[in-house]
Amino acid sequence: MKPLQVRSKVWLEVDGAPLLGDGRERLLRLIDEFGSINAAARRMDLSYRRALGFVQAMEENLEIPLVLRAKGGAGGGNSSLTPEAQELLTKFDRLRQGINQAIDEKFAAIFDR
Amino acid sequence: MKPLQVRSKVWLEVDGAPLLGDGRERLLRLIDEFGSINAAARRMDLSYRRALGFVQAMEENLEIPLVLRAKGGAGGGNSSLTPEAQELLTKFDRLRQGINQAIDEKFAAIFDR
Repeated sequence: MKPLQVRSKVWLEVDGAPLLGDGRERLLRLIDEFGSINAAARRMDLSYRRALGFVQAMEENLEIPLVLRAKGGAGGGNSSLTPEAQELLTKFDRLRQGINQAIDEKFAAIFDR
Repeated sequence: MKPLQVRSKVWLEVDGAPLLGDGRERLLRLIDEFGSINAAARRMDLSYRRALGFVQAMEENLEIPLVLRAKGGAGGGNSSLTPEAQELLTKFDRLRQGINQAIDEKFAAIFDR
């Protein structure tokens, strides 16, 4: 039998609706990095409207603000993550790291002999 | 902030190609239960050809037989899982149970306070 690898995907839900997975996490991190929803959207090949829709959907599901949006002029707005969004990203990252470690350990214990 | 739930998906790969996830696991378990690829396929709303394709793809990827296929007459063939397939299912089930438990523990430790 050829060697197997384990793969996994982890995401968070609110009331059974997807809230945060790899894609939306990346969007929030890019908004944080560039200070701009528009720049983050371009980087992910999303339209501004679609990226904003993701942010708004997350905020509505969680019932807290995640991105502080400031309308801008020629240079575009200046957006930043709220402390709650930062905390959510930090926790999600810790969760995923912990899970990946647990998965590697379980997989080694069960499949590698 | 509304309460979050954690969700996850686990699957096995061989050489970077998907081998076994929830769908194919169910297919193998139904073949075991009914002793028939055809009956398992019908139960999953798959064509026989498609179900057989999944089985053959798994066997080619792993380079071991998973389903012993016996051609049948009017009543259809009588198929059974090989010991290697039974072992794979048992290990996959243990892996998923272990992972689910670890995920619940990590999630509680990080998100519930």
